[in-house]
Amino acid sequence: MQYDFVNAPDRTHTDSVKWDVKPGELPMWIADMDFKTAPEITAAMKEKIALGAFGYEFPKDDYFNAVADWYETEHNHRPKNEWMIFTTGVVPAISSIVRRISHIGDNVLVQEPVYNIFYNSILNNGRHVLSGDLQFDGEKYAVDWQDLEQKLAEPLTTLMIFCNPHNPVGKVWTAEEVQRIADLCHKHHVTLLSDEIHGDLVRKGPDYTPAFSVEVPAKQSVISLVSPSKTFNVAALHAATAIVPDENLREMVSRGLNSDEVAEPNLLAIPATIAAYEQGHDWLKGLKAQLNDNFDYAAEFIQAKIPTAKVISGTATYLMWIDVHEITDNSEKLVNFIREETGLIVSAGSIYRGDGHDFIRINLACPLEMVKDGMDRLATGISKYSKWLYM
Amino acid sequence: MQYDFVNAPDRTHTDSVKWDVKPGELPMWIADMDFKTAPEITAAMKEKIALGAFGYEFPKDDYFNAVADWYETEHNHRPKNEWMIFTTGVVPAISSIVRRISHIGDNVLVQEPVYNIFYNSILNNGRHVLSGDLQFDGEKYAVDWQDLEQKLAEPLTTLMIFCNPHNPVGKVWTAEEVQRIADLCHKHHVTLLSDEIHGDLVRKGPDYTPAFSVEVPAKQSVISLVSPSKTFNVAALHAATAIVPDENLREMVSRGLNSDEVAEPNLLAIPATIAAYEQGHDWLKGLKAQLNDNFDYAAEFIQAKIPTAKVISGTATYLMWIDVHEITDNSEKLVNFIREETGLIVSAGSIYRGDGHDFIRINLACPLEMVKDGMDRLATGISKYSKWLYM
Ligand SMILES: Cc1ncc(COP(=O)(O)O)c(C=O)c1O
Ligand SMILES: Cc1ncc(COP(=O)(O)O)c(C=O)c1O
Repeated sequence: MQYDFVNAPDRTHTDSVKWDVKPGELPMWIADMDFKTAPEITAAMKEKIALGAFGYEFPKDDYFNAVADWYETEHNHRPKNEWMIFTTGVVPAISSIVRRISHIGDNVLVQEPVYNIFYNSILNNGRHVLSGDLQFDGEKYAVDWQDLEQKLAEPLTTLMIFCNPHNPVGKVWTAEEVQRIADLCHKHHVTLLSDEIHGDLVRKGPDYTPAFSVEVPAKQSVISLVSPSKTFNVAALHAATAIVPDENLREMVSRGLNSDEVAEPNLLAIPATIAAYEQGHDWLKGLKAQLNDNFDYAAEFIQAKIPTAKVISGTATYLMWIDVHEITDNSEKLVNFIREETGLIVSAGSIYRGDGHDFIRINLACPLEMVKDGMDRLATGISKYSKWLYM
Repeated sequence: MQYDFVNAPDRTHTDSVKWDVKPGELPMWIADMDFKTAPEITAAMKEKIALGAFGYEFPKDDYFNAVADWYETEHNHRPKNEWMIFTTGVVPAISSIVRRISHIGDNVLVQEPVYNIFYNSILNNGRHVLSGDLQFDGEKYAVDWQDLEQKLAEPLTTLMIFCNPHNPVGKVWTAEEVQRIADLCHKHHVTLLSDEIHGDLVRKGPDYTPAFSVEVPAKQSVISLVSPSKTFNVAALHAATAIVPDENLREMVSRGLNSDEVAEPNLLAIPATIAAYEQGHDWLKGLKAQLNDNFDYAAEFIQAKIPTAKVISGTATYLMWIDVHEITDNSEKLVNFIREETGLIVSAGSIYRGDGHDFIRINLACPLEMVKDGMDRLATGISKYSKWLYM
């Protein structure tokens, strides 16, 4: 089957957050895609709607089998069905687990710069953010292991939120790194909450490693959160799965998700997830090919036309991480300027904290024509900004 | 347009909780309906699915206008758009509000017997249940006002969950009663959380009174929770609206719903709710006519064939409340026996607490043929139970 990665569905004048923009603006910020989802998924949705009666539902074995099959086929690790709990989303599960697994006043460890909503889940629940900052050497990001262990060893550190693969820097952690982080967490009685929402979006090179696949005894302390949300452009499907190998930890997570009312599927969540995981393999291949083309185009464009900017992305996610420190150390000012001048909306790296003030993040999950438009605007914006600075 | 209230969609072998039964069993317990929803709603769902891209969404004015129009047309009171907050369900909102508006160890007041999930929302969050029991005189239920005021006046009572109309007894509170309860709450610094999920299902007689419509100053202390969920058989749509006239209280509720991640709409929630509220008036009329036929049939049947049982329902909900105290004071034992012997599944009144042990609750939202089948089984089950008791 041929899939369409050329035409963007028109989401202006819908309820889309991303496309709530002024005429002429081009949103390349919030992390959803300007592609239609796999037609196999919409077909399953239509079939469900034909049923007509939409009472209370619960996920059965066909749901958990579909998740397990997908992980075995795509990622070489099969979670057991009994390890899994349905949840309405990755962020709902993170917030609930923060509340259930840590206490008010505890430290929750993250690796800045990282997905900004982690800070909401931590701070809105009265916990503290403790960062083992990723170290940037001008080319790539790495862990400072000594710093990390020291912070995990602090008695008030009870939970680590791990972005695996890492948004916004696009880093795919190696199997050794995932095991090492899990081992350190286990050693220091810290639960490892691994957000794997970008796990299916490793565009090339070695695959990511699900936290549920680590060796015992560390396996007792890990939670993987997975979802078709990013992979298939179904953020508003509200479907995700928590995978918790340890029975005791799983019961705690399950009680939390249930008490917080984020454990019941809506009427599309189950059939659409099953369709995605059973029939979505080819569509995902097509998507990755398109994303790689987009990344190649943007990387070449930036190298040729915006020499003051430097692409730093790893091999995962459809989000490009661009070092703009030669232009500014206040990326928020830069992105506001670019929007004003060109209508292009990108994310300021500063919202991810850490060294993010030196970076911008741009979402390339859209038709190549849109990427080209975005790149032209980016070049214009940055060039004007630089001139304006020295005026 | 003619609507179909004759054919039940087949939900065996789906993810339905209600229809997860053994062959031959007839579930008349969990509160969803065995009718297809309004075709106008499924049409709106199909249209949304055709869009194909399902990223992040937020509710706009067309959503809030639809809610306000519905309340003005159906219930004679128009909430202001700025009073409203979208939420994923009535129970998710209740649990979140319990957490945000009361403190651990506080009393949350309810009126037993009442919808059992209220107890989960209270107890799972470490609050205490305090009941101002409804008084049953053998014919109908009433409030003991002195007892209620005394309990609201207790310093540890900070929240009241009001079932308006009341599940399981089907009582429609008068405008005077709603105002009086709101006034008492306000006087004693208790927030009144009014669950109005059954508000559209007043089958005949005077309409229900939304809590958001009470007079100031009590209006500052009320929250109404409304939803198309029960009305249109879309429990798994996961769409509801909190209506909070007071700005300060609203901000608190809003922060709670957002932190708890139950404030974002899934991809069907907005268009299906708009369709329900804009185009669902006639379907609802048809539904109520069918429910009245079902209630008439069942009431006559019980009076004629099960003289030891007595129908006590008020004029709201599709749930019939049946006094079985002449048969047993342990309705749980009775319903288990009925299921074993006849396959009919009804709810034991005991789960609603208060005097519920003397009652059973039966869901009549299904085609008349199914009601007839259910009544035959009920008569058989009760007759066998009575014989078995005296064996
Ligand atoms: C790392 C990460 N986690 C979670 C999410 C959102 O998850 P959900 O929509 O399932 O709540 C995002 C979206 O950008 C993300 O990048
Ligand atoms: C009084 C009452 N409130 C709430 C609910 C369920 O609400 P929701 O499905 O929106 O969480 C029910 C369902 O039976 C109910 O009877």
